[in-house]
Amino acid sequence: MGTSIESNSMQTPASPKRRPTIADVARAAGVSPTTVSHALNGKGYVDTHTRERVKEAARALGYRPSIRAQRLRTGEARSIALISSMPYEVAGGASRLGFLMEVAAVAAGSALTRGLALVLVPPMMSGRLPLEQLDIDGAIVIEPTAGDPNVEHLQERGLPVVCLGRQPGNDAVPYVDIHSSATTEMLLRHLSDQGSRRIALLIGAQERNSYIESRASYEQFCAEHGMVPVIAVADESGGETAGAAACAALLEAHPDIDGLCALVDAFAVGAVQAIRSRGLRVPDDLRVVTRYDGIRARSCQPPLTAVDLHLDDMATQAVALLFDHLGGSGDARRSVAPAVPTLVVRESSAGVAPPATSI
Amino acid sequence: MGTSIESNSMQTPASPKRRPTIADVARAAGVSPTTVSHALNGKGYVDTHTRERVKEAARALGYRPSIRAQRLRTGEARSIALISSMPYEVAGGASRLGFLMEVAAVAAGSALTRGLALVLVPPMMSGRLPLEQLDIDGAIVIEPTAGDPNVEHLQERGLPVVCLGRQPGNDAVPYVDIHSSATTEMLLRHLSDQGSRRIALLIGAQERNSYIESRASYEQFCAEHGMVPVIAVADESGGETAGAAACAALLEAHPDIDGLCALVDAFAVGAVQAIRSRGLRVPDDLRVVTRYDGIRARSCQPPLTAVDLHLDDMATQAVALLFDHLGGSGDARRSVAPAVPTLVVRESSAGVAPPATSI
Repeated sequence: MGTSIESNSMQTPASPKRRPTIADVARAAGVSPTTVSHALNGKGYVDTHTRERVKEAARALGYRPSIRAQRLRTGEARSIALISSMPYEVAGGASRLGFLMEVAAVAAGSALTRGLALVLVPPMMSGRLPLEQLDIDGAIVIEPTAGDPNVEHLQERGLPVVCLGRQPGNDAVPYVDIHSSATTEMLLRHLSDQGSRRIALLIGAQERNSYIESRASYEQFCAEHGMVPVIAVADESGGETAGAAACAALLEAHPDIDGLCALVDAFAVGAVQAIRSRGLRVPDDLRVVTRYDGIRARSCQPPLTAVDLHLDDMATQAVALLFDHLGGSGDARRSVAPAVPTLVVRESSAGVAPPATSI
Repeated sequence: MGTSIESNSMQTPASPKRRPTIADVARAAGVSPTTVSHALNGKGYVDTHTRERVKEAARALGYRPSIRAQRLRTGEARSIALISSMPYEVAGGASRLGFLMEVAAVAAGSALTRGLALVLVPPMMSGRLPLEQLDIDGAIVIEPTAGDPNVEHLQERGLPVVCLGRQPGNDAVPYVDIHSSATTEMLLRHLSDQGSRRIALLIGAQERNSYIESRASYEQFCAEHGMVPVIAVADESGGETAGAAACAALLEAHPDIDGLCALVDAFAVGAVQAIRSRGLRVPDDLRVVTRYDGIRARSCQPPLTAVDLHLDDMATQAVALLFDHLGGSGDARRSVAPAVPTLVVRESSAGVAPPATSI
């Protein structure tokens, strides 16, 4: 595959071995290494003239202080990890430009403005993430399950962790509220407003807080609207196929449902396929809505009504919350609540005609 | 915005201050610190019994070797950065789930399997990237311009750099060939095959290799097909608006063009708007194609014909190439050529009817 062309090293000016030390700069400037350190770091008292001389010597020699040595002294890596605990089938592959990456893009920028590097840890085919080798100060974990091994590992290392979406059964981990109850309520109310009277819920089998909250909201909604709860569960690692199978079984057992809230976008796309292959129409016979407004929701045929979770705000607040805890302050916040999600209505639930094309 | 709840620290078991040292383990196991180091790192000769005793002592004390200290000794950060040098208006904001993030998702996984952490450096509003503070061993820079300040900074630090897309005017930087000539040729041939006879090219004003190669391919194509070259240039930082303005001016000066190759997706989307606001139809009056097959191309109305650049392969090869150079091997490859791009034909150039909907 690769074209191999004649090779030469490109780092002639500053190969690691010839890297000038603080002692070289001190010698060149005729001062002590401590003075060099103070002059370059803006610490201690160094008169302007000496500071300039040191800076010039450093520049001339190509001296740069070792970030790594500084960090060993301060005990800080100055980097945080962003970790997805979703299986590869949902968060990786075809849908890899999803929730995780949308959060990553914003979080990385937000971290950098605080002097933190963001290390991206995507879902791996292997399942188990190789976190041991990461030299980090803390981590943001997206939607951890109960007993999530990644969260456990990080906590064992004594590293601050912040979850995007509360971790079930672990109140010790600070979290960003991703408003799962409010999101489900909003989707159900929308289906009801559009005319759906027998609404089913499709969630993942994993023990995530979003499913737990959604289920509770759904059951309450059913009670309030005199609906019999119909809940289907699919394994996340089955992706679209699992969503299609769960929906097919649902339609078999409950042919009268006229609304489906499929929380995972991959499930929703699979569900639309299952509905169509039964000869039913979306939204005419059955309205379908999902949560995350990503590529899957937008490119589904018909496009899916979804929720703008304001991931920008969530990501920014997750970094801010983790930053608070990195400081080791005893009164850092336990949770933050970003902007409330808003509905993005599309054809799958509203029967809006697609925009006119030139054909 | 944030909800503040009662706070407590979660790292009681292993606060940084009480972190056990190698000396603690040595004392507990009744051996020397060197033996502890050998036993835990699998180096030197340590008999099985002693090794087990040391491991048990380490486990009991909760000892973990300092990754940072190890790395200071080895001189490796074991992390690489992925840097976008595109302006925020093109690569950030609305289109942030684009090229960079698609590469990032794959590169991060690929790096992790090699024991490298991937630090994500997205385009910043500020323009200048704060790279000084990053403790990295090397970096992948996406489509650098001639004299790109980020590449310059990294090279000054003596860090290996690999470019995704050759850097103009700097043959010293190893690169992944992103096949810009072949991509442009393919798009032009497609427009010609569909019936376009007067094809214009719209590229960015920045000095990127993709524009340079595209322009050359386009001029050659024009010469071969007896077409007069019509090249419009727009500033990347103007995003869709700049694309629309450049296309409007193009149509004003050359009302007879019937094909447009707009290399930047943001420009292509803007161009479609400009074409429509002149009362022209895409593709009936004017076919439009673009390069990157991202959200913008897919969600444009009509959807844009684009190119599958096989970013998976590009990202994997970029990490592999950088990994070669991290090793400091004198005969590391100078460039690699990933899979040749393939065309994704959509409505904007082919007039394919959209898939049937239920409406």
